[in-house]
Amino acid sequence: MPSQMEHVMETMVVVFHRFAGDKCYLTKEILRVLKEKEFPGFLKYQKDPLIIGKITKDVDQCRDGKLSFQSFLWFTAGLAIAHNDCFVAHMKQKGKK
Amino acid sequence: MPSQMEHVMETMVVVFHRFAGDKCYLTKEILRVLKEKEFPGFLKYQKDPLIIGKITKDVDQCRDGKLSFQSFLWFTAGLAIAHNDCFVAHMKQKGKK
Repeated sequence: MPSQMEHVMETMVVVFHRFAGDKCYLTKEILRVLKEKEFPGFLKYQKDPLIIGKITKDVDQCRDGKLSFQSFLWFTAGLAIAHNDCFVAHMKQKGKK
Repeated sequence: MPSQMEHVMETMVVVFHRFAGDKCYLTKEILRVLKEKEFPGFLKYQKDPLIIGKITKDVDQCRDGKLSFQSFLWFTAGLAIAHNDCFVAHMKQKGKK
């Protein structure tokens, strides 16, 4: 049975290729669908409504609207950092009580 | 219920803090344990035995042996890219048959 982090790696590869298909990249339109399907809770509860747009712009380094697997990882990492910041703030708040 | 990618983000945060504890960073020794516990299959089947060492060196940008959450994400991304390369090569090979 894979470990939790091996499952993480496997899921990232599988989800990317499910959306990218044979092309091996995500178009702007496909990324929009992926965000809605795969990050609905994050989109709903994120305090900064512009953060996903900012991260998307940052990772599309070629400015061609195509996201490679590597860019998809940077995109996920950007969201995970925002998620971790909320987690750390929550734990600190909890520690104060 | 969280989506697959929301579960990925959640797992990365939880695993990092489980190993980092209150410190909010991973030491070299803790990272060694994390690799063994969380990437055993990857370590076993990786064709390039030096890849984990290379990635670890790359992400420890401050050269202080301490890995922040962000560095931990780059570390995971490095392994995921290697994993994806194997996946793509395998799919191409399969397509040829």
